[in-house]
Amino acid sequence: MKGLFITIEGNDGSGKSTVIASLKEQLAKLNVEVVYTREPGGSYVAEKIREVILDNDNIAMDDRTEALLYAASRRQHLKETVYPALELGKIVVCDRFIDSSLAYQGVARGLGIDNIYEMNQFATEGFMPDLTLYLLVDPQVGIDRKSNQKELDRLEHEKLEFHTKVYNGYLELAERFKNRVVIIDANCSVEEECSSVNKIVLDYIKERGLE
Amino acid sequence: MKGLFITIEGNDGSGKSTVIASLKEQLAKLNVEVVYTREPGGSYVAEKIREVILDNDNIAMDDRTEALLYAASRRQHLKETVYPALELGKIVVCDRFIDSSLAYQGVARGLGIDNIYEMNQFATEGFMPDLTLYLLVDPQVGIDRKSNQKELDRLEHEKLEFHTKVYNGYLELAERFKNRVVIIDANCSVEEECSSVNKIVLDYIKERGLE
Repeated sequence: MKGLFITIEGNDGSGKSTVIASLKEQLAKLNVEVVYTREPGGSYVAEKIREVILDNDNIAMDDRTEALLYAASRRQHLKETVYPALELGKIVVCDRFIDSSLAYQGVARGLGIDNIYEMNQFATEGFMPDLTLYLLVDPQVGIDRKSNQKELDRLEHEKLEFHTKVYNGYLELAERFKNRVVIIDANCSVEEECSSVNKIVLDYIKERGLE
Repeated sequence: MKGLFITIEGNDGSGKSTVIASLKEQLAKLNVEVVYTREPGGSYVAEKIREVILDNDNIAMDDRTEALLYAASRRQHLKETVYPALELGKIVVCDRFIDSSLAYQGVARGLGIDNIYEMNQFATEGFMPDLTLYLLVDPQVGIDRKSNQKELDRLEHEKLEFHTKVYNGYLELAERFKNRVVIIDANCSVEEECSSVNKIVLDYIKERGLE
């Protein structure tokens, strides 16, 4: 496909939303069309699945059920949103993708990176991002940042131990996927974080001749 | 596990509901507790997933998304409904299980029996029914029976070609899983069909010493 698929990952509280907003401002200055989207969700069917995943009433949800729902949402989002944009040569910036499943379900929930990766092949048929940024913040700092928000969803209620596993999971994955992953230290000020991300993404787009 | 897991499969219009109602009457005479359930659904989370799968507004749903949603629903249903009942030594009679995914998504949707089977291993971890009945009716007869119902759901709107593939898929699967599958000819009267099913299930329960 002609476009570029860039995914933004990170543990909770690592500033993904702020970073993406800043990136949006920067990329608006280029001549290429950029689509901003997110997982789970991003299309009608995928948003319906998102509602089931994040529903606070679904406390009895099994870990494998959750992983399958993320994969279902991923598949639908690829078909309806990501692939059509890439075919048209657009840049797609996606808030979370397969690495989130690997870190959250594979490592933190203990289902195993390989098990989650294999099952996701059914959803992605081997399709992977061109570039992925891991925004990594100290897990306790991340939780503190999040707790200032008014309403936390089901996943954000999880404890420090869980978030530490996610953090370590991302570190393990960064090693495995080093050809497409760049780690961003999110313990700094948000301005520094945004500046690092913007530079890396802009340089990457230039290298690919897509500006 | 101590109980028995019996699944009832069949192409659309094969009389599953009537057969299960009749079976319920017969098994009520035994001394063992029987749980009647269905896929997709059968528990709070699984019913939420069922709503997404069968929603007529979800016309853009990709075939792989659908298969993943069925697997998610299956997993949750096993954990919340099937396993707990089997642990207590109950008989569980389930309207559709993995064979439906293999026949509908694997064969009729063309995703491949092996692909669907492998992906479902993530949901079932190898767990399979003790006994499965395939109620098979001529596909055109099945559609005619269904069209007398007032409201058809999304899947029931599918055409004869699709239903013929499902039918042939079940025949292929019966060969593959012959150690647990019994085919019931559903082209006869509903009384004969119910009588055949009741006899097979009662004999099986007796053999296992669970009556």
